[in-house]
Formats: sequence, structure tokens, C-alpha cells
Amino acid sequence: MSDSPVVPETRVLAVASHVVSGYVGNKIAVFSLQSLGCDVAALNTVQFSNHTGYRQWTGSRVSAEEIIELYRGLKQSYLDDFDMMLSGYVPGAAALEAVGRIGEELKRKAAAQGKPGSFFWVLDPVMGDNGNLYVAPDVVPVYKSLVPHADLVLPNQFEAELLSETPITSMSSIGHAIQVLHERYGTPHVVITSVSLPHPDHPVSSLSVVGSSMTSDRRARPFKIVFPAIDCYFSGTGDMFAALIDDDVDALDLPLARAAEKVLATMHEVLTKTAERMQETVEKARVELAKAEVDGTERASNVEDEKKRMHLLKSKAAELRLVRHLDSLRFPKAEFRATRL
Amino acid sequence: MSDSPVVPETRVLAVASHVVSGYVGNKIAVFSLQSLGCDVAALNTVQFSNHTGYRQWTGSRVSAEEIIELYRGLKQSYLDDFDMMLSGYVPGAAALEAVGRIGEELKRKAAAQGKPGSFFWVLDPVMGDNGNLYVAPDVVPVYKSLVPHADLVLPNQFEAELLSETPITSMSSIGHAIQVLHERYGTPHVVITSVSLPHPDHPVSSLSVVGSSMTSDRRARPFKIVFPAIDCYFSGTGDMFAALIDDDVDALDLPLARAAEKVLATMHEVLTKTAERMQETVEKARVELAKAEVDGTERASNVEDEKKRMHLLKSKAAELRLVRHLDSLRFPKAEFRATRL
Repeated sequence: MSDSPVVPETRVLAVASHVVSGYVGNKIAVFSLQSLGCDVAALNTVQFSNHTGYRQWTGSRVSAEEIIELYRGLKQSYLDDFDMMLSGYVPGAAALEAVGRIGEELKRKAAAQGKPGSFFWVLDPVMGDNGNLYVAPDVVPVYKSLVPHADLVLPNQFEAELLSETPITSMSSIGHAIQVLHERYGTPHVVITSVSLPHPDHPVSSLSVVGSSMTSDRRARPFKIVFPAIDCYFSGTGDMFAALIDDDVDALDLPLARAAEKVLATMHEVLTKTAERMQETVEKARVELAKAEVDGTERASNVEDEKKRMHLLKSKAAELRLVRHLDSLRFPKAEFRATRL
Repeated sequence: MSDSPVVPETRVLAVASHVVSGYVGNKIAVFSLQSLGCDVAALNTVQFSNHTGYRQWTGSRVSAEEIIELYRGLKQSYLDDFDMMLSGYVPGAAALEAVGRIGEELKRKAAAQGKPGSFFWVLDPVMGDNGNLYVAPDVVPVYKSLVPHADLVLPNQFEAELLSETPITSMSSIGHAIQVLHERYGTPHVVITSVSLPHPDHPVSSLSVVGSSMTSDRRARPFKIVFPAIDCYFSGTGDMFAALIDDDVDALDLPLARAAEKVLATMHEVLTKTAERMQETVEKARVELAKAEVDGTERASNVEDEKKRMHLLKSKAAELRLVRHLDSLRFPKAEFRATRL
């Protein structure tokens, strides 16, 4: 049956942001994991109207105390029997510490039950991108204290620099940064998502994912997967990678490189289909808007208003079209191959 | 392609409760609607650790102000372009009034754009069950003020009594209650979920759904669908009915009776599969617990503790296994037939 579950029974705790409209954080993770057959407990760390890429949003953050209370609620009803945890954006150092304690406790519990490998924590250290820190500076040391407890960390290039304290300027320096992450933190698996570095072997408009599963003496075994860049600024791609790899690495017991290949196949299909549709959607909206202004049903806007309106339109059109592409989530057909770094 | 979207592009605003673990409210509605291909904006009215059927939970409610702010956030970024709204549990009269204003505004907007039928509001008037009011008494008049704006209301038997102020004691009095709902509130479509009334034609262990789409002069055209009761207390069945009928009635333009037949087919399959698995899960947990008490890894419990623990175990095992039965959500095979009441 093609609609039967893709993965065995797996209970996942997903701690990340929630947006009412659109797809980032838990709005991506929950559906992606559920569509594969996972039972997902979704602990939302914020509830915002939409993602911050729109440059305006409303909503509120969940406090450290509320996070602790929700977890206590799960425990008291024996609902803390998780096989995995996926942690994404958490607002502020105190709330992040609370999430960290949950991860550590679940790891300890698995060890105490004599099943130390039975719980898997995927940590997405959400701190910034492209050289910009977009969290408070006191969040960085908290992530550094949590990484040693995670099974897989998923920094982007900038976050890998922050955690390794190693500048990444070339494909060889990225190998060095990964080695530092394995050595310093003892994290068994590392994947650096969206690496944008020139390399003689790569096409000009390509990106890479670079990952490694360490040896028992903490030596990196880095691989890379090169894939075509899509000329569009999507939000939530890191969240989507995290959700899908979370499931693959542990549940299917795939080596990291195989799991990453599969994740990229899904992402490439969903992103390509979203981008194809985006152009058309934006064009249609632009025509409608111009017509409404001529009709007088919308007041004619000045240049600033128009720019803002177009940015909002494009942001909406760039929301990942996950729910229209269940086939890509469940059984991707695209093929990407990992090679040694 | 069997994984392709079941419904056309549909943008739904789902306003209901969120539980971290398990399946009620938006945790059911969002996945059900997304799995059919709907773009769901999920405005969560509470975040609780688990549903209240466990008899213990933690978490917090979202205030009326926060609901208003979230909706303002959607509007300011032109994200209020909904084809449907599904409203479920909303904590308190003030928050419910806020949700009501959203529904009314979306209806007015559709009318102002010259597309009065283009927005469809499914209202689940969550007030109580089996003769017990489980919301504050001041919530009841708010629901009475909202029902005239809804396109479809989904009371259970008790809520239908409250709204119609008509006692429901027989299959004929239920027809009368529906007539009152059409007449007094002008609501075009009504479905009373989980009707448990004896009738000479019905098997002893059966339940019914009774619905009606009114004529232009507000006369009821009631139908009923009889289906086998499953001897197990599930939570979230009303939410599941709401999510699935929401989508069917409008998007597929099915008459209400046909839509309800399809929804019941999905629900019957998911509930049956959940119940089948439940017995086994509870038995396994009971054995493990007894073993742990003998081993001394769990302290031997007194009768009260044991009863509570078993209630929690059963509650967890009765959580709807939606994510393991995507096939039943998307393409149910069970068949139920509506007949005239």
C-alpha cells in the first residue's frame, strides 16, 4: 500500500517554533514527520502569525517556565517515552537551557533503562546565518553547553563557525571545523547545511551539504553532497532538513551520508516545485493588485508601499508547498550522491 | 499518483486547541487537512501537554488579546485569504468572541469582494457532552450569537439541545431540534455528531450522525447515518469529524449527506484500527509494569495509584492513530449510507 507508513513506529518530541500561516519550524517538522508515520509530540516555543522573513509578524514567545511545565505534564502522564528529540528555534537563553535539560534527561533515562542508544537527539543550533547573529549573544554559550549531549548537530555554515570557533572560508577549512566539532564536543554526527563555498569541481550555482560521522577516536570522516542552488530565498529549509534527517538517521539506520542524500532529494523536489509555482503566483498577484488600483478598490500605493507589498507577496509565494507534494516527502525520486570531501 | 493532493488548492484557518502529545483539536485537524492537500493556518487557542481526558495536564491558554493580535498579524501581511475557517475549542467567552469576530470579518470580506459563497465557516460549538457543560456558562450565549454566521454547525447531542433549547430524547425530537436550529439561526447546514438514541431499526450497539441542509425557506431535510459503536472512549472524534467534513463539503462540493458518509468511513477505519491496537498496547504495558514492580525498578503501587496509572495508559493507547493510517484519511474504503430520518 503506497499510503502505508514509511518508517516503523517512532515517537518524536519536536521542540521548535510555530507559525499560524506558512511553513517553518514545527509547522514543517510536524507534518513532514507525521507524513512518514511518526507520532510527533509538538512542543511549540513561540506562536507567531508568520515567519520573520516577512519582516513583520505578531504573536508571543513561550517562557522557560512554560516549557518546563509542559514537559512536567508529559512526564506525570508517562508521555515522555520518546525515541527521538528534534530541537529547533528556542527564544532566549533561559528557554534554551530548559530545552537542554529535557534533552539531557531523556538521554539519561534511556541510559538508565540499559538502552543508551535508544534515544537520539537532533540539535539545530539556531543562532544566525550569513555572518549575522539573530539571537541574543548569551544564547551562544548555552548551545556550546548542549552540543556535547546531542547525537547529531545541524549548524549552517555561520553556526558551525560559531561553535567550532574556526573560520570557514574554503572546502578544506570546513573539514577542519567539523574535526573541531567532533573533538571538542564529542558529537558523533555533524551535518553543515547550505555550504556556499567555491570549489573548482562545483558548478557556479551550486550549494553543498557537508557532513561527518566520527570514528571511535573522534576522527572526522567528512562527505559532501553538491546540489543545484535555486535562485529564490526560501525560509524553513534548515527546518525541513532537520525534520527529515532526524527520522532517517535513526529510524532507518542509514549511514549519515545516505540519509542526507535522501533528505536532499525530497528538499530539491519540494523547492523546485515551490519555485516553479512562485513566479506564476507573484505575477498573478501583481496583475490583480494593479487592476484593483485602477478600479479604485485598492488605493494606489507609493513606491515604498509597493515594495513592501511585493515583498510580502513573494514571502507568501515562497512558503514551501509541502502539503501539495506528499509524494516528494514520502518517496522522493531525485538523486544526489555523496562523495568524500 | 496516489500521493497527489486529494482536494484542490484550499486555504483553511483552523482555530482550535493544541496538545503537545496526542491527538485532539488542531493536532487532528491540521494533519487531516494537510494530508488531503490543504494549506492550513493553525491558530492554537491553548497549548496543553495532553488532552483533558487524561484528567491531568499542564500548559496555558491563549488570551483574547493574543488571538486578536495573531489575526492582525495575518491581515497586515495579506495572509487572511482563507477559503474556509474551522473553529473548535476556544477557552472562555472573551476569546470566543474574538474568534467570532474573525469569522464574521472573513464572511463580510468575501461578500464585499462579490464572492459571498467563497468563504465557508464550520463551527464546532464546544460546550459539553452527555449532559455536562464543561465550559463557563457565559460561553453558551456567545455561541448562540455566532451560530447565525456559520455555514455549518457541528454540535453533539447535548450541544444541539443547548443551542435549540429543545430536549432531544428520540429520533423524532432530534428532527425537531434541527428544524429549530435552521429556523432560529438560519444556519444552512447542521450535523449532530454521535447521536445515541434507541430506535427499532438500529442495532443495539450503534450510533448515528444526523444532519440536514435546509431549503431556501429554512425547512430541514434531515438524514441519518447509522454506524457501529466501538466500545472504547476516544477523545477527538468530534474534532476529526469537523476537520474532514470541513474539507469535503466545500472543496468537493458534495451534498452534506455524501460528505458525512465519507467522513464516517475514514473515522470508522481509524477508530477500528486504533481500538485493535489499543488492547494489545494496554496489555503489554500492564505486563511490563507488573514486571517492573517485581524487579523493584518501579515501586509497587497501591490500588489508587494502579487505577490512575491504568487510566493514563489507556488514555495514551486510545489516542487516534491518524499518522499510521494515512490511507484511511486519504482514501477510505468503508461504506456507510445516509437514509432519510
